[in-house]
Amino acid sequence: MPPSNPKAKLIPFYHANSSVAIGEKSTQGRGGMGAKIEAASGAVKDGSACAACVIAPGDDLNSIRSILSPHYDPKLGPAKGTLFATPGSDLERLAIEELVVAVEDEESVSDLARDMAVKARKEARKLGAMPFEVRRNILNAVAAALIERKAEILEANKLDLIDAEQNKTDIQLVKRLKLTEEKLKTLEAGIQQLAAMDDQLGVIKAKRELADGLELAQKTVPIGVLMIIFESRPDSMPQIASLALASGNGLLLKGGKEAVNSNAVIHEIIGDAIEKGSNGAITRDIVGLVTSRGQVKDLLALDDTIDLVIPRGGNKLVAYIKANTRIPVLGHADGVCHVYVDKSASAANASAIVVDSKTDYPSACNAMETLLLHSDTVQNNVALNVLQSLRSAGVRCLGGPKAMKAGLSDVPAEQMKFEYGDLRCLVEIVDSVDEAIDWIHQYGSGHTEAIVCDENDPVGEDFLQRVDAACVFKNTSTRFADGYRLGLGAEVGISTGRIHARGPVGVEGLLTTKWELRSAGGVNLASEFGGAAPTKTFTHKELM
Amino acid sequence: MPPSNPKAKLIPFYHANSSVAIGEKSTQGRGGMGAKIEAASGAVKDGSACAACVIAPGDDLNSIRSILSPHYDPKLGPAKGTLFATPGSDLERLAIEELVVAVEDEESVSDLARDMAVKARKEARKLGAMPFEVRRNILNAVAAALIERKAEILEANKLDLIDAEQNKTDIQLVKRLKLTEEKLKTLEAGIQQLAAMDDQLGVIKAKRELADGLELAQKTVPIGVLMIIFESRPDSMPQIASLALASGNGLLLKGGKEAVNSNAVIHEIIGDAIEKGSNGAITRDIVGLVTSRGQVKDLLALDDTIDLVIPRGGNKLVAYIKANTRIPVLGHADGVCHVYVDKSASAANASAIVVDSKTDYPSACNAMETLLLHSDTVQNNVALNVLQSLRSAGVRCLGGPKAMKAGLSDVPAEQMKFEYGDLRCLVEIVDSVDEAIDWIHQYGSGHTEAIVCDENDPVGEDFLQRVDAACVFKNTSTRFADGYRLGLGAEVGISTGRIHARGPVGVEGLLTTKWELRSAGGVNLASEFGGAAPTKTFTHKELM
Repeated sequence: MPPSNPKAKLIPFYHANSSVAIGEKSTQGRGGMGAKIEAASGAVKDGSACAACVIAPGDDLNSIRSILSPHYDPKLGPAKGTLFATPGSDLERLAIEELVVAVEDEESVSDLARDMAVKARKEARKLGAMPFEVRRNILNAVAAALIERKAEILEANKLDLIDAEQNKTDIQLVKRLKLTEEKLKTLEAGIQQLAAMDDQLGVIKAKRELADGLELAQKTVPIGVLMIIFESRPDSMPQIASLALASGNGLLLKGGKEAVNSNAVIHEIIGDAIEKGSNGAITRDIVGLVTSRGQVKDLLALDDTIDLVIPRGGNKLVAYIKANTRIPVLGHADGVCHVYVDKSASAANASAIVVDSKTDYPSACNAMETLLLHSDTVQNNVALNVLQSLRSAGVRCLGGPKAMKAGLSDVPAEQMKFEYGDLRCLVEIVDSVDEAIDWIHQYGSGHTEAIVCDENDPVGEDFLQRVDAACVFKNTSTRFADGYRLGLGAEVGISTGRIHARGPVGVEGLLTTKWELRSAGGVNLASEFGGAAPTKTFTHKELM
Repeated sequence: MPPSNPKAKLIPFYHANSSVAIGEKSTQGRGGMGAKIEAASGAVKDGSACAACVIAPGDDLNSIRSILSPHYDPKLGPAKGTLFATPGSDLERLAIEELVVAVEDEESVSDLARDMAVKARKEARKLGAMPFEVRRNILNAVAAALIERKAEILEANKLDLIDAEQNKTDIQLVKRLKLTEEKLKTLEAGIQQLAAMDDQLGVIKAKRELADGLELAQKTVPIGVLMIIFESRPDSMPQIASLALASGNGLLLKGGKEAVNSNAVIHEIIGDAIEKGSNGAITRDIVGLVTSRGQVKDLLALDDTIDLVIPRGGNKLVAYIKANTRIPVLGHADGVCHVYVDKSASAANASAIVVDSKTDYPSACNAMETLLLHSDTVQNNVALNVLQSLRSAGVRCLGGPKAMKAGLSDVPAEQMKFEYGDLRCLVEIVDSVDEAIDWIHQYGSGHTEAIVCDENDPVGEDFLQRVDAACVFKNTSTRFADGYRLGLGAEVGISTGRIHARGPVGVEGLLTTKWELRSAGGVNLASEFGGAAPTKTFTHKELM
């Protein structure tokens, strides 16, 4: 049937089972659709090792790209053609999977998503201009509501747990999913602590006299609208929403589908608390909750509306988001942390730090994945002591080439850069601190790197200065790389990027600055300071 | 001929003039290439309004995407197929243009580009660990060399000017291209000034006792490797290289092709000065110069090697770069700046600021593009005075809907958000400061917004607080939004992004931070602070 027929439906992918009603020969084109389908399906004959064909408007390259694009790209516009592929080929399988997503997305690239972000920004601008008192009241209202309405929360969480059981969900995921009264109390305490901290908005970072009567101030302001995508843990939502509210930002939240019931209730409770805490001055629209899969993709495309995406989840989630958005992403994809045991280290200190770094929470991003031992420690038995301690704690030590040669391990490691996330680690020997630093720069992920050494040996400072990573520690476990432990209050995440924020990120990482320039005693013009005969001169005097 | 024949060449695009030697029927596939080409070219019959066909490995969707992708994407891999399109169609034209680029790029995704970035990082890490003295000596050596070797520079620049003349280049571009002894002296002075400033590397931004004997410091460090892409102005290179060297960063520079001779000589001079100023401790590899078009695209794909891209050029350049890289981009695509004339403003002040903001340098990104007049100013003649001053200065005032109705302009504006970049501006009437702020948030680009008002009227502070932009000014020209004028020393660019740096960016914007944690009097373990029976407690005491 001709595309002009309102009942006509685009078939993005043609395969043997497609029921296609081939239309009459077109009166306009030289070949009707029937001829094209015939030609195209000839080109993808069953079993042919080498053919795929697209029927699409010949003058619209973007449409063809759109058909083949793995993700809906608003710049290309909707797919306006049909893909033919060899039946049973990988191409067919991929195409089916991906086109379904593309078509779903096309329908859901809705004004709704943009509206949500625009509304959050509008409310955030109102909140940012209000005194800290309002934000403090909102935070305390959120904290109180989590306890007052714990029955609702735990009830909803129960539904998620039942679903998880029916879906035979992984036990670790269920653990993260489960809310308890104790977890809610911890959340309450954290949010109250945030409310008790000094205001970090409106802080003057620089003040300068530019000229007589012309004064500049650089002031902290909220970033705008943040999108946080978190997996499975429903307790992430109040924690992150509180950080965003404390810093005056608008927020779009996307929780894991496993926690859909818990998230919906918590979101409602936060919304109520915002309106109550602000006496109705700020609406619940400041925190939007994204529910469907399609909507996240829509939001990832809103690079003109959302200022920062913060993924909180596994490597795969972070990598997916980084690959599918032009919005700046704050987060880390890898946590390949090293502990370097210097020749000056004692066996006791080295064992304690290495075991703590590896076993305190093996799946955390700040857990040690690689142990670098100075070659002298192999001679003086420190290395053997450390490895024995690790093995006693249940850790399997895989050997790098030199460690295998020296007889430190039974199992060779396959990769020199790998995040095990469990009770395994790589062990390798280096001949000097220089070699350790080079190794870390080559195979590390720039997250957290630690040295164990004699407290007074200059090697410690050398390591601290020269290692290029977000966190560099001396005689301390890598596990300290955490917002709470480093005294930032709560934490939105840990950044291994070098732009904006690096390492554990608290409220300060959710702020940007604004330059305010005030003229007093008359106006100031650029032309007065330039040209052939300037009438005014810059003084550029620091005022703080 | 079969693809296994070493003389076989992939034909990425098939059209009527392609001379294709069709091979024998394949022994492995069910249909030979001849049959496929026949089927495919049938599908794209001359004049058909609706057909395009790709012959490609049927199990390699990425390869097909690659054929149709406008830019070479290393994630997709090289194109391994042929595109058939209707002869004479737009698709054919586009495909030819873009495939040529894709094939060129494929050849130039070279180890060279990555090597350049890796070497720059290595040298930068060395430089960042050295005392400020070394960076200061390098800067002074660069400044001195620009004068000592001015003959070489001006000679090379002459060659570029001759080329520009032969190519009938735009007069504005020639102006930007031309170097003079005076421009070199200004550069020298700027770099000397940078060398005289306080060191901004290694500055402690926060210091905190986490627990007894456990001390945290947050210290400024270089970002790593920056890529700066600048158009036509060869004087950008020494200026930007100096900022990068002052902040300890590695650098890849890409200058406009118009300035290829000037850039090559200046790059060599900077390289010599780096080696001389550091007594050979740092090699010239710390500043790489990218020359060919293909190489930029290669570098834009190196998101694992380059930390930040800073485009310095027109909107189109910035938009192109933002659309083609996953590396964070620091810059602004739009400068749609507003001046709002409040009802409390005097005619003299309003005229002076508006005329200066528009005419001091109309093509600059900080020039006024939209004038918002409070409706009272239409009654009290301030509006008429301001418009007369603008028109006397040669400015054409296009009217918004309300301004047209009020008889303030002869020509209606077509867009409410537009960067004219010349002696035109939009004029519109608003009824209140609220309406002005809403207008700015809707149509502004978040660059620089100014208010003209009575000095003591609270409306000035209200505007400063509520407008969400990088720079917000009271009774001052928008033209002050500039690194030099704001006292940042030199400037790498102006950011309208909210992440990392906002507004004019100097040395500070090229830095990030690192967390250093030191244990004294024994080691510290995470497990000592947690679990059922913690043996240590956090003190979290601010030390500065």
